[in-house]
Order: sequence, then C-alpha cells, then structure tokens
Amino acid sequence: VLTKKIAVLAGDGIGPEVCQEAIKVLNAVGDRFGHTFTFDHQLMGACAIDATGDPLPEETLQACFEADAVLLGAIGDPKYDNNPAAKVRPEQGLLRLRKSLGLYANIRPVTAYEMLIPHSPLKNDRIAGADMIFFRELTGGIYFGEKGRTEDGAYDNCTYSRHEISRIAHLAFKAAQNRRGKLTLVDKANVLETSRLWREVVQELSPSYPDVKVDYLFVDNAAMQLILNPKQFDVILTENMFGDILSDEASVIAGSLGLLPSSSVGDAVALFEPIHGSYPQAKGKNIANPIATILSAAMMLEHFGLLQEAGLVRYAVEEALDKKIVTQDLASPVVAYSTEQVGTFVASCV
Amino acid sequence: VLTKKIAVLAGDGIGPEVCQEAIKVLNAVGDRFGHTFTFDHQLMGACAIDATGDPLPEETLQACFEADAVLLGAIGDPKYDNNPAAKVRPEQGLLRLRKSLGLYANIRPVTAYEMLIPHSPLKNDRIAGADMIFFRELTGGIYFGEKGRTEDGAYDNCTYSRHEISRIAHLAFKAAQNRRGKLTLVDKANVLETSRLWREVVQELSPSYPDVKVDYLFVDNAAMQLILNPKQFDVILTENMFGDILSDEASVIAGSLGLLPSSSVGDAVALFEPIHGSYPQAKGKNIANPIATILSAAMMLEHFGLLQEAGLVRYAVEEALDKKIVTQDLASPVVAYSTEQVGTFVASCV
Ligand SMILES: CC(C)[C@H](C(=O)O)[C@@H](O)C(=O)O
Ligand SMILES: CC(C)[C@H](C(=O)O)[C@@H](O)C(=O)O
Repeated sequence: VLTKKIAVLAGDGIGPEVCQEAIKVLNAVGDRFGHTFTFDHQLMGACAIDATGDPLPEETLQACFEADAVLLGAIGDPKYDNNPAAKVRPEQGLLRLRKSLGLYANIRPVTAYEMLIPHSPLKNDRIAGADMIFFRELTGGIYFGEKGRTEDGAYDNCTYSRHEISRIAHLAFKAAQNRRGKLTLVDKANVLETSRLWREVVQELSPSYPDVKVDYLFVDNAAMQLILNPKQFDVILTENMFGDILSDEASVIAGSLGLLPSSSVGDAVALFEPIHGSYPQAKGKNIANPIATILSAAMMLEHFGLLQEAGLVRYAVEEALDKKIVTQDLASPVVAYSTEQVGTFVASCV
Repeated sequence: VLTKKIAVLAGDGIGPEVCQEAIKVLNAVGDRFGHTFTFDHQLMGACAIDATGDPLPEETLQACFEADAVLLGAIGDPKYDNNPAAKVRPEQGLLRLRKSLGLYANIRPVTAYEMLIPHSPLKNDRIAGADMIFFRELTGGIYFGEKGRTEDGAYDNCTYSRHEISRIAHLAFKAAQNRRGKLTLVDKANVLETSRLWREVVQELSPSYPDVKVDYLFVDNAAMQLILNPKQFDVILTENMFGDILSDEASVIAGSLGLLPSSSVGDAVALFEPIHGSYPQAKGKNIANPIATILSAAMMLEHFGLLQEAGLVRYAVEEALDKKIVTQDLASPVVAYSTEQVGTFVASCV
C-alpha cells in the first residue's frame, strides 16, 4: 500500500468541479486498496491572478515540487482572451509550470469508445477501432522562443535543440514498441528548418528501434488523414504547436472533448490533466463532464505503478458510459446526469 | 471579348495532366464566347530542378510577370521529402514565386457538394450546407522568417507586420460583406505575440465594417470546430501556417481534396491552383481528378471579370458530378472515368 501526496491545481471555470470528482474516485480507490492519497489544493490561472496578481504563485510551484504528482483542472478566463494588451494571463501560469517542472512530453491517448461512436461527427465505420496516442513536445518550440514587438510588428521565434527532440522521441519509440509498432512523425519539413531537424533526429534514432516502423507526414496532410483514416495511426510524435492543434482535432474521434485525459512527464514530478479547457459558460452549473479528469487520475495511478487500480477506474468509466450515466455533452437522447452524479457513480464502481 | 495570356506552371506529378484539362475547358470557354486565351508553358518545381538546377528559373518568373494570370498544377517530389540535407527543393520555387509575385492572400472556398456528401468522412447532417472560404496569409509568418541552424539546434522565426495583417484582413472583411457577414479570425493569442497583433489589427479594422460580425477562435479549438460544426463558418481569416493546416483539414468536408480550387492574389498578377499536391503515385496514369484545377480556372475567369463564363464552368462541373462522370477518388460504387474523360466532358458542357 502506498501513500501519495497530490498537488491539486483546480484552476478556473469548470476546473474545480471536475477535479472534485477525480478526487472522489481516487479516494474510492484508496479505500478499496488501502492506499492513502492526500490532496494539497493550490491556486493557478485566473483565480491565482485574482488572489495574488500572479498566475503561478511561488507557493503553488513549491507545492508541486513537493508532491508525488500534480492534478490540474483547467485554466483560462474569457476576460483575458480578447484583451491583447493584458500583461498577465492565466496561460502564462500554465506555460511557466510546464517549463519549471520540465514537463517536456505531453501524452494524449485518443480512443473511439464503442458506445460513443454514434456521438462522433465522423462516420462510424471510419472511427470504429481507432486507437492512437499523441506525444506532443511541451516545453519548446514557438511557445517558449523569444517573442516580442518591433516598431511595426511582432515576432515569435521557434527553436528546437537535438536534445529536446531526442528525449521525447525516445519516449515515443518506446511507447510504439509496447503498442502496434508504428510511429508517425508529423512536421513541415518541406518548409521549416526545425522540422528538418526533427526528421534528422528521428531518422538517426530509428535504427535503435528496429521493431518500430517510422512514417513521416506533413502537418497539413496529417490534419486531413486524422479525419479521413484515423485507424492508420498508432503513436504520433510532433512538436508543441502542431501537437496542440492535431490532438484537439483528433478529440472529435472520441465523440467528446470531455473524455480525453493527458499526462505530462519530464524531469521531475508528473502532471495529469484533461485536455479540455475551463469552459467558463458551464462554471458552477454542475454539468461539466468529469470523465476526462477521472481518466487523467487513472493515468496518474498507472504512473504510480498501480496498474490494477488504474484498470479498475477505466472499467468504472466504461460502466458509466454503458449505463448512460453521462453528462449533457453525451446525453442526447438519454437524460443528462450532473457532474457530481457521474463522479459518484464512477467512484461507486471502483 | 478578351485576349488573355496565361502562364502555365504545370509542375510535377499529376500537375501536367490536370492542367491540360483546365486548358481544355478554358479553350472551350474561349470558343463559345469568342475570347482568346494563350498559354505560355514554363518550368517550376522538381521538373525545373531536373532541367536547370533551379526550382524557379528566372525565365519562369519573367513569364509570370508578363502574363495576365498564372495557372499552377502542383509541385513536389518524394525524392526531396525525406532528405533533410537536400539543398534545393521544389517547395522553394513555390515559396519564392509567392513572394516574388507578392501573392499575400490565398483564397480557398470549401463547399459541401450535395452529390458528394456521401463521400465525406463526416456525418451527412453535419456538413450539408457547409460553405466557407479561407483567407490564408501567404507571404509572411514562419514560412518566410529567418531560419537556420545553431551548433546544437535549429530555428524558424515567425514575424508579422501590421501592414501584412491589415491588407489581407481588408480583403477578408470585404468578402464577408458579400457573403453572410461573418468573419472568424483564427489565432493563438493566448500564447503568441504575433497572434495578439493579428487580434489587435482586426479589432481596429472591425468598426469600419459594421455589417460584419467578428469572432475570434484559438487554432486548437478551430481545428475541432471545423469538424464538429462546419456550418458555423463563413469567412475564416488566418496566418500562413495555421491556414495551411486548417484549409487542408477542411477539405474533408468536400469529400475529396480533388475538388478544391484556390486563388492567390496580391500586388501583381494573380495565381490559380488546386489545393492538392503532386500526388506522385498517380503520375502518368490518367486517373487524377482534374476538377480542382478546372474550378481554379473558373476562379481565374471570375478574376478576369468573366462572371458568366465562370458560372458556366461551375455548372459544367456540377453536371459531371451529377452524371457521375468522375475519377476514381469519387467513383465508388460507380465506374471511374479518366482524367482526360472528365475534362472532355466538362469542356463539352460549356
Ligand atoms: C491553454 C493553452 C496555453 C494550452 C496550450 O496551447 O498548450 C492548451 O491549449 C493545451 O493544449 O493544453
Ligand atoms: C508545398 C507547400 C510548401 C505548400 C504550403 O505549405 O504552403 C502547400 O502545402 C500549400 O498549401 O500550398
């Protein structure tokens, strides 16, 4: 039995509501298996700006370093989005957190759940059986390069070093070995120098993983192929910006953004978060889908080495989907349950 | 009646085959209405590298400047794609051409053709009636910023000036006025300084177009919304890289990449090209879909002010689709016609 300390950054919008359900499920797992999970709630995002002026207060960062894992809800508030002149933004907290914790690999599995296939905007035969996992580089590229204004313009610099590419590429190759043995590097090597470096590094590593077949796809083509034929993909490796776009796009395969978890790993403590945003319109309404956060908690359990526990949480989620104990995003034509009800049901199946 | 000189850069792969059918259709239009179109064939892309060492020979560029319009097939050859060390690439010719001709706005209409809806990977009720047009900035951003290698890495700089943004924004606002009055700016203003500048400039211009409603969408969300609810879009304005990705993604709505035309306009002569690539596997087989190139020729006619002629070409294309005189990409379950047969049929309906 384990004792684990989890830093919880519930964040903004629906973040607190979905985190609460994931905590409920983790506590149920603790009760059932005798583990002790403790939760250290800290501020990040717009709520942290409101309270302290800083989207990532020092105390929050410290708590993350001292924790065994970080659970993140969502951050962001529309009051910052359409104000290009805002000096402090919630997103800065998230980006600084990723960089400070050295979370260089964001891992996003996308699966077409049998029972949700009718919910997808894609024709059902195209997605049945689709099962891919994104490895998105998370602490480099245009997100973190020098940026600023000139007299008449603005710039964002995109940079990558060989080291930044090879460390996440190794993770992706290893994941491919444990899956169907296929790795697709997505880049824009016909235009970008950084993409040519990605291709070079991946080509160099490839002989060390003879059991992995490597494919290269331009990002524009990848954006199309994900919809035309999602079953062709196994592990998708890509840089930060392309990964942001493509993994959100791929979420349509699952039928709802509210289902997709992610983990971010790197040098120190790992972080787990749903891929959806703070969905401010739903805040406080008890209608947000908690499943993405609950599945993120399952990835956390797996990270702790608790494979059986993680499997049980996934099974419990499938029970909820099967029995149609789902929030409104998945409810039509059945009745919608609340965020809390879905969390309670999943916890009860653990 | 008009006399127009058209520079034809047929390019690589299927480029020559599809250009030939567009020329056939333009000649039919000429015969019918008494216009004279002359065609000046020039090299660009891999074929130009093979012949001269330069993907955009001076003679080609000169011919474009002297023409009333440019018709482009497609460029690119796989022998350059997986060779990160290749010094000369076909794409350089295309990028240099765009820059030299000052083609700052790439315009891509995407419509769900009634008869092709069954071909789309999207559920039919999601796309029926979808009708949007992309305004993609084409001569700025990360495509044209300084790029290179450092000791251990690589970089690509993304820059935009106010001028580069406002000139294409004006075109997009005007297009929205003539359509359904909605403009969506796609950016990543929560992370990128250039995106914040785009948002600023568009916000500043917006009061001059009181009849246009402006929306802002982050690129990751846009990638999802295009599939979840494509009917929400009218005019989409975005920077070069995001436009490359999203407009290819949106092509799935039309059921085949082989249907989508584009025009690129700017300071001097305008250029017309299908959005598909050189499709090397199909080269010389007489199976490529010529419709995207034929519809690009229709955009050219419109650009010449020949609205009736352009309308007739579009009608002729719909006839071909209706009567299922289509190439293999659209043929199942009906029999496939050849590239040439489709072109000849469309020309005969003009
Ligand atoms: C909120 C935003 C900065 C963030 C990103 O772009 O990385 C989000 O979209 C994500 O994917 O986690
Ligand atoms: C061939 C390539 C350089 C080009 C681009 O990225 O602009 C193509 O994808 C396009 O969209 O016209």
